[in-house]
Amino acid sequence: MLGTHAKAGDLVQLVGLRHKHFLVRLQDGAELQTHRGVLQHDDLIGLPWGSLVSSHLGNPFYLLQPALDDLLRATRRNTQILYPKDIGFILVSMGIGPGLHVLEAGTGSGGLTTALAYAVGSEGRVTSYEVRPEMQALARQNLEKLGMADRVDFKEGDVNEGFDETGVDALFLDVQKPVDIIPHVRKALKQGGFFGSILPTTNQVTRLVGALRNNHFAFIEVCEVMLRHYKAEPDRFRPVDRMVAHTGYLIFARPVLRRHEPGAPEANVVPSDGGKSQPESDNGDAD
Amino acid sequence: MLGTHAKAGDLVQLVGLRHKHFLVRLQDGAELQTHRGVLQHDDLIGLPWGSLVSSHLGNPFYLLQPALDDLLRATRRNTQILYPKDIGFILVSMGIGPGLHVLEAGTGSGGLTTALAYAVGSEGRVTSYEVRPEMQALARQNLEKLGMADRVDFKEGDVNEGFDETGVDALFLDVQKPVDIIPHVRKALKQGGFFGSILPTTNQVTRLVGALRNNHFAFIEVCEVMLRHYKAEPDRFRPVDRMVAHTGYLIFARPVLRRHEPGAPEANVVPSDGGKSQPESDNGDAD
Amino acid sequence: MLGTHAKAGDLVQLVGLRHKHFLVRLQDGAELQTHRGVLQHDDLIGLPWGSLVSSHLGNPFYLLQPALDDLLRATRRNTQILYPKDIGFILVSMGIGPGLHVLEAGTGSGGLTTALAYAVGSEGRVTSYEVRPEMQALARQNLEKLGMADRVDFKEGDVNEGFDETGVDALFLDVQKPVDIIPHVRKALKQGGFFGSILPTTNQVTRLVGALRNNHFAFIEVCEVMLRHYKAEPDRFRPVDRMVAHTGYLIFARPVLRRHEPGAPEANVVPSDGGKSQPESDNGDAD
Amino acid sequence: MLGTHAKAGDLVQLVGLRHKHFLVRLQDGAELQTHRGVLQHDDLIGLPWGSLVSSHLGNPFYLLQPALDDLLRATRRNTQILYPKDIGFILVSMGIGPGLHVLEAGTGSGGLTTALAYAVGSEGRVTSYEVRPEMQALARQNLEKLGMADRVDFKEGDVNEGFDETGVDALFLDVQKPVDIIPHVRKALKQGGFFGSILPTTNQVTRLVGALRNNHFAFIEVCEVMLRHYKAEPDRFRPVDRMVAHTGYLIFARPVLRRHEPGAPEANVVPSDGGKSQPESDNGDAD
Repeated sequence: MLGTHAKAGDLVQLVGLRHKHFLVRLQDGAELQTHRGVLQHDDLIGLPWGSLVSSHLGNPFYLLQPALDDLLRATRRNTQILYPKDIGFILVSMGIGPGLHVLEAGTGSGGLTTALAYAVGSEGRVTSYEVRPEMQALARQNLEKLGMADRVDFKEGDVNEGFDETGVDALFLDVQKPVDIIPHVRKALKQGGFFGSILPTTNQVTRLVGALRNNHFAFIEVCEVMLRHYKAEPDRFRPVDRMVAHTGYLIFARPVLRRHEPGAPEANVVPSDGGKSQPESDNGDAD
Repeated sequence: MLGTHAKAGDLVQLVGLRHKHFLVRLQDGAELQTHRGVLQHDDLIGLPWGSLVSSHLGNPFYLLQPALDDLLRATRRNTQILYPKDIGFILVSMGIGPGLHVLEAGTGSGGLTTALAYAVGSEGRVTSYEVRPEMQALARQNLEKLGMADRVDFKEGDVNEGFDETGVDALFLDVQKPVDIIPHVRKALKQGGFFGSILPTTNQVTRLVGALRNNHFAFIEVCEVMLRHYKAEPDRFRPVDRMVAHTGYLIFARPVLRRHEPGAPEANVVPSDGGKSQPESDNGDAD
Repeated sequence: MLGTHAKAGDLVQLVGLRHKHFLVRLQDGAELQTHRGVLQHDDLIGLPWGSLVSSHLGNPFYLLQPALDDLLRATRRNTQILYPKDIGFILVSMGIGPGLHVLEAGTGSGGLTTALAYAVGSEGRVTSYEVRPEMQALARQNLEKLGMADRVDFKEGDVNEGFDETGVDALFLDVQKPVDIIPHVRKALKQGGFFGSILPTTNQVTRLVGALRNNHFAFIEVCEVMLRHYKAEPDRFRPVDRMVAHTGYLIFARPVLRRHEPGAPEANVVPSDGGKSQPESDNGDAD
Repeated sequence: MLGTHAKAGDLVQLVGLRHKHFLVRLQDGAELQTHRGVLQHDDLIGLPWGSLVSSHLGNPFYLLQPALDDLLRATRRNTQILYPKDIGFILVSMGIGPGLHVLEAGTGSGGLTTALAYAVGSEGRVTSYEVRPEMQALARQNLEKLGMADRVDFKEGDVNEGFDETGVDALFLDVQKPVDIIPHVRKALKQGGFFGSILPTTNQVTRLVGALRNNHFAFIEVCEVMLRHYKAEPDRFRPVDRMVAHTGYLIFARPVLRRHEPGAPEANVVPSDGGKSQPESDNGDAD
């Protein structure tokens, strides 16, 4: 359980008029300068979360704990980053939770890195590869600012040449050409682990699905998540006029062993479009 | 990091032909009986995850670690449960992560309880209210089976009469008539905390939005998440024929203080349809 | 069958760079002035459709017959007009075709009027009510330009006070408060005729559905049409980034007689959410 | 304007309990036998549309004029037919209206043929190719039953070998492998005419787009139409639970001449993803 009042060292979000928001870490004696006036950190420390405060110019700001969603926005800088709608589904589909070791490539500006580090917690581990050093430096800054850099191993390198790790619990690829990397994924990801990727075009998706099949991945699933916002007006309730129509196709799969011992007959079962694509299917679990 | 091989005490998923799947906890000497033959737990213990094994009738099964998604399916029993598409977005939007104290009502058959317990980890805490004792008993069984019951306080009771807790980090309502409960939510949830709910009809949504406004909640957002599956066929790539068109509208909001001290002038800023409904908006964070 | 070559009197569309397009009616001796140069009508008359022509500045234009879609765009002036995605579904759902008499209110800038006049043909009839004279004058100009004004009776008047017509085949309401007009619709529209409307908010929709029920309409249907565009790139096929998320909810219904003779027992059958909402339902038609 | 009362020779729809519906043409002395009892045509002739009638067993039926939508359902027999949501958008996008000559291949069971024949009216013409004679015989029966067979030329033949027609206003391909037919389409469809197709997989779409580009088609557009039904309950308004997720991708394009006279310089303008994919774009039409 987190605290109910803001204290020095906390990462806080200040949300002003028109939802202009600022993400800062509270420090004794520091001040936040905005185009709507200055806020003294000392005036904020000790206040209950949700308080309405004013800048020296009298402009109002809400003092809030940032949501993961807000942290992700804060990293939205140099590259296209994953959207919360996709990240939420990735976390659930790949079972990303406290204590896991997750590998990702590339780091980009650290949006997914942030979400992964948040979800695996202080007992988990994220390893993040990126070939562009300046991009990774930016991501590291982002994670440091959010206080989660110590959960992440940033590695500069080209994943086309392979990963150092083996036996990781989950691995996510956010690269333009994932196909040639799949054999390396096979080595880094433990058997039965969780593989995920996101790709914008159907041409890339079909190539990746082919590569996954050729490399003994099963339970291959492809889907897309769409998010539709509504105007929260009780008397005039309606969807907003426009929406994001496409971020990317999500691909999930799991590496499997075709047989559990040498010489065993090969089973005729490498399902490719998982039962999960039939959300209405019966559930045959037993105790 | 989780292990690479199955061991006694692990919760495992066995996926057979047509994706018929079974969720069991491995025990020395136990056996799993299925309509496709029997599997001895002792034959599974020690195998690498992802192994393909056979029942005594020769039918193949994959030995897998269950994803959170699979755990949710395992609880899909007596009631409508939340879908992974919604749960993922709820976790990210409400910032549910390791160490938080989250309150939910009602428990239902424990689907969201499972996801919350998974996400808050062993250092977090979930308090779950349910008015129907037999339903909560089922949910408790589900959580015990999944090994996460110790993270959850199950409370039998009618939340229309209030919550025992105060200052919780996040609170989710999955009840038919949330409106009258909102004043109680205000007391249980800390200022600036995360409120969420899901409702199937627009009539319920507009009533809830009205109640949230009347109770000094800000940053009210309403949205829906749609998930579209594709057939993972590289040469015939296309969406599946049918999809879930509706599970519910998601509502998020945060309780705020109108002023941080008695006598202060009231600011003219209670935004109701948060900046997040403008996903293309500029990001004004500062360091 | 329309002609294969442009001739004097034809309505033509000239599409230049960046799809900037111009809608003109060809006249001997006339000229079209654009910011990319001048085109002489005489140079266009006699050319095959689809020709690529050049302005006096050398800028290229395609000479095309306008699609209905293009005509609708040409009327997109002073008011929000119906989108082609909605109009197409309205025409099919209400069976708007050659020879029908269709009534609409209000005219607006004449977008739907155009589509209705196009679909009913020279043997059909459209009656269009509008309370704002300047708006109707604009719509009339639009229809005259498109050569279809002679199929339309423009009537200035407030439909809250009723319609002059009776027994029309189909009636479409595009007004903010349709509820009070429904009894008038009952009188103007023939029994079993086709009623349609479009409304942006769920509050309006539920009020209209209630009014339709109270006025003995059956087969009430509510739906929305979503259109998603793709980038037509063979090697990088993907949806476009953003889309229109909402134009309005479409409502369809048909006025029915509760009994066909006085004194007959009332049948317990006023279905409200038509079988059409079950697109997978069996089709029980017989010969 | 159609009549207000049913008369002999009219095509009528009788809708019974649970929306079980029957499509018949009224004849003096005939009777309709249903599993819910018999209806005498003579009892129906002369009634106003929308009347509620009873079978000899006392079961209620509404007497209605069928909508185009209902006619389409009546043809839903041996093959997958186009859905109203797609047909409506096809009609508007391709400008199908009274008096046009439209060519289609293949006929299938005549769903689109019905819609085209309805839209072009008695002055228009539909030519429909089909390679399977038994399928075309069925379609012809369907159109005869609906009274529109005289507007359609049914041609048995393989369109891979070309079309007999030239200069048609619009041409729609509903075949599995349209790519090789495109050069034939070029000859049959007039310059600047309207081409349309529907295909279920992205692989087919990208091949078709490539073939269209290679054959000097411009204004190529790809889109999909999604339809979402709502439960028309004023107090519990919500989308229905499930929906059709995919019928097919719609492809539209127009054949253009690269130059309007021999020897003219080739313009650098073969746009491939039409301005229509930017629905918010300015409209540059001039008078």
